[in-house]
Amino acid sequence: MNAPVPVPDATRLASATAAEIAAAVASGTVSARAIIEATLARVAALDPAINAFTDLTAERARAHADRIDAARAAGEPLGPLAGVPFAVKNLFDIAGLPTRAGSKINRERAPSAQDAFLVERLEAAGAILVGGLNMGEYAYDFTGENVHDGSSRNPHDLTRMSGGSSGGTGAAVAAAMVPLALGSDTNGSIRVPSSLCGTFGLKPTYGRLGRGGSFPFVTALDHLGPLARSVADLALSYDAMQGEDARDPGQTPRPHEPVAGLIGEGIGGLRIAIAGGWFRAKAHPEAFAAVDAVAAALGARDMVDIPDAARARASAYIITAAEGASLHARRLAVRPEDFDPAVRDRLLAGLAIPASWVDAAQRFRRHFRSEMLKLFQTHDVLLAPATPSRAPKLGQKTFVLDGEEMLVRPNLGLFTQPISFIGLPVVAVPVRVNVGDAPDLPIGVQVIAPPWREDMALRVAAELERLGVAAAPAATL
Amino acid sequence: MNAPVPVPDATRLASATAAEIAAAVASGTVSARAIIEATLARVAALDPAINAFTDLTAERARAHADRIDAARAAGEPLGPLAGVPFAVKNLFDIAGLPTRAGSKINRERAPSAQDAFLVERLEAAGAILVGGLNMGEYAYDFTGENVHDGSSRNPHDLTRMSGGSSGGTGAAVAAAMVPLALGSDTNGSIRVPSSLCGTFGLKPTYGRLGRGGSFPFVTALDHLGPLARSVADLALSYDAMQGEDARDPGQTPRPHEPVAGLIGEGIGGLRIAIAGGWFRAKAHPEAFAAVDAVAAALGARDMVDIPDAARARASAYIITAAEGASLHARRLAVRPEDFDPAVRDRLLAGLAIPASWVDAAQRFRRHFRSEMLKLFQTHDVLLAPATPSRAPKLGQKTFVLDGEEMLVRPNLGLFTQPISFIGLPVVAVPVRVNVGDAPDLPIGVQVIAPPWREDMALRVAAELERLGVAAAPAATL
Repeated sequence: MNAPVPVPDATRLASATAAEIAAAVASGTVSARAIIEATLARVAALDPAINAFTDLTAERARAHADRIDAARAAGEPLGPLAGVPFAVKNLFDIAGLPTRAGSKINRERAPSAQDAFLVERLEAAGAILVGGLNMGEYAYDFTGENVHDGSSRNPHDLTRMSGGSSGGTGAAVAAAMVPLALGSDTNGSIRVPSSLCGTFGLKPTYGRLGRGGSFPFVTALDHLGPLARSVADLALSYDAMQGEDARDPGQTPRPHEPVAGLIGEGIGGLRIAIAGGWFRAKAHPEAFAAVDAVAAALGARDMVDIPDAARARASAYIITAAEGASLHARRLAVRPEDFDPAVRDRLLAGLAIPASWVDAAQRFRRHFRSEMLKLFQTHDVLLAPATPSRAPKLGQKTFVLDGEEMLVRPNLGLFTQPISFIGLPVVAVPVRVNVGDAPDLPIGVQVIAPPWREDMALRVAAELERLGVAAAPAATL
Repeated sequence: MNAPVPVPDATRLASATAAEIAAAVASGTVSARAIIEATLARVAALDPAINAFTDLTAERARAHADRIDAARAAGEPLGPLAGVPFAVKNLFDIAGLPTRAGSKINRERAPSAQDAFLVERLEAAGAILVGGLNMGEYAYDFTGENVHDGSSRNPHDLTRMSGGSSGGTGAAVAAAMVPLALGSDTNGSIRVPSSLCGTFGLKPTYGRLGRGGSFPFVTALDHLGPLARSVADLALSYDAMQGEDARDPGQTPRPHEPVAGLIGEGIGGLRIAIAGGWFRAKAHPEAFAAVDAVAAALGARDMVDIPDAARARASAYIITAAEGASLHARRLAVRPEDFDPAVRDRLLAGLAIPASWVDAAQRFRRHFRSEMLKLFQTHDVLLAPATPSRAPKLGQKTFVLDGEEMLVRPNLGLFTQPISFIGLPVVAVPVRVNVGDAPDLPIGVQVIAPPWREDMALRVAAELERLGVAAAPAATL
């Protein structure tokens, strides 16, 4: 027993999906330790070019892997993610490390005493944390560029953006350095990198997953969630991360029926529509082509307008800029030179936003949410682009949308902001269409469900994966 | 039976306390109808000079009185306030009337379909609503002056302010037009008119009494409560107004042990201290003399500092100006000329307050509250002035405090704002001291208790009334 596992198998498996790895570890085909060694080797080989990782927790990962292998040898039950390596955006607390949240300033903080709640949940299911991931400073970013740590690069084209702010998360998953990683999404920071890096990404309903031990951005809009290269992996990790988090007063704990076993059941009966209006303008043709390909595969023909989406986005901006600025007010006052200038300038502007604007935005938010809920009386799932374009070039400042030259940095979130603004659950699915520039690159489609119905969005995403319309192959590196 | 009650008795009783009226009605000494007729006659005689009432509900009051008299004749049980006339600041909804909230604009609103929650509660206890009372526009006021309805005048000196914003409430009670009236207090609007008009006033703990059907000012700071000429009446009405209000999401419903039977039990064991620092500066000598007289009568010698009271007041200002402005933003935009200029200018300034200031003020509020709770570990009740001076003259713009000429309008709330800022319960007690100008006029002292301990403040107030140190005789008119 415990014969050394052939290294080639571990190497191959290290770039497999979480479900495949967990099955291999559970069956004894490979040891957790071998998976971790192969993962660390893969990260060492690939990450210098990609720059997804800011921290590695190699010794901790090895020790955890050994515990799992010992448990298996002793015949103890293994968790559903046993042996699965994962990493987290560096705004999640990792015991023993300062939580840098993409900043220079925060890395002077005391090391965290405890892991973030979701790290604890995934590790309780057997997954093995291997490190912290690059991100846009303080999550105020859609590009994945970071002046302190360098930009994380898109594994499908190293000259392009990973998307942000969970850029390292998208890049690490797309490069198959890990099968699973966690990001955060305040205005699109899971869905934008999912779109640009071609991964699946789940932004759950606001209040669903516990945020204890994560560095905040805008409490009323912050969501945490997984990115992966298969819908099954999203579902597995999503199930594992349920539970009441005493450290997150913003959580709405709810009983959870596991979704991993359900998502292959097809989409019979789901009424699916394309989001129109705001969601059919200001984008490159590939964004709409991707939505149309998804809609065609699902037999969805209705197009519904979402009135006031522009106002929803503007309101999300006001709340974000004002609350973000307030969160960082003291740091802005005493250490302005230690911020990324692009982040600092927006935060300083945010300091001046009148409270009456924020109140008006919050009032509109309640109105917009109730209007959107009415829409879900006639449709179960809405389809919208995740980003207005494929991954822009690193350093690219503008792109042309509908004939208008617009800034890349804020406008990559054009289509994600109105949705997270009211906390709807979304699965971003990666699609390839032969339209527009750089057709080899993926682009994402948002599959949007009513509050607390992540299961519906995951079922649709799984069906698209089964049909071959959505797929997240590892980048060829 | 039902012999006509002698009119002189009703006339005398109409200016009695609520407890006396209720006892007389319950015993049949006088009919509720006779009380109401005498009350309406008294209002007709006195109010042209005082200007406390903006609305009379005479027919409704007569009908209610007749129902009570019929119930008594039928041997049905009567409520503890049966036959007691009361009136409410005109920001309380009264079915059939628009809720003007002291403004010109709001009187174009549709008539209310339902009474405010506290009106319902008092009427359920047998009290009889006789009208709506004058107030500062939209409650943003400490003077009782109102450009639309004219100023309510101080019954003890008609050339002086009633205090605001519940000016009509204080004046109606002090003039004994009603024994009981309701006001609201966001920064001092119950305690300031109580002080200037020489009535008792209760501002309960934030979240205690339901605010359903009242026009708001600053949701996080708005309190409702009674004014009366005896502590027993405060307690009786306070007991009657308990209960869960489905219309007020800001309420914290709690089980209630009636206090009316307890307040005569003395103050044995209560540790009482004088508030120092901020609360011993910037006032006329009579303000401190009144506190000292109260402290001496209670045997209280300790003086405790309340650190950061200045910052608490500033923070209350920021939150008030910003939220008030936000509440009225649309009206300010479309009908600026219909506001009192003094209110409009402050609201317009409030529109520009940055959200980050409001956030900082809210953060400080949590800190200040926890510091104050520590103070209550060593003391049960704190004493502080209610206003820095006796009633200023109507139209008086400035007064001199500590040698500095300061604006009257904002600074009448100097001592009340830091206390309501964190929602502590306060009974304002009226005191007469032979110090300073106009020594015949009353001035108030705040009796401040920890959250949810209205009973302690009421017990101290009752003891002061028993000792003759605090008293609220009807004004001689």
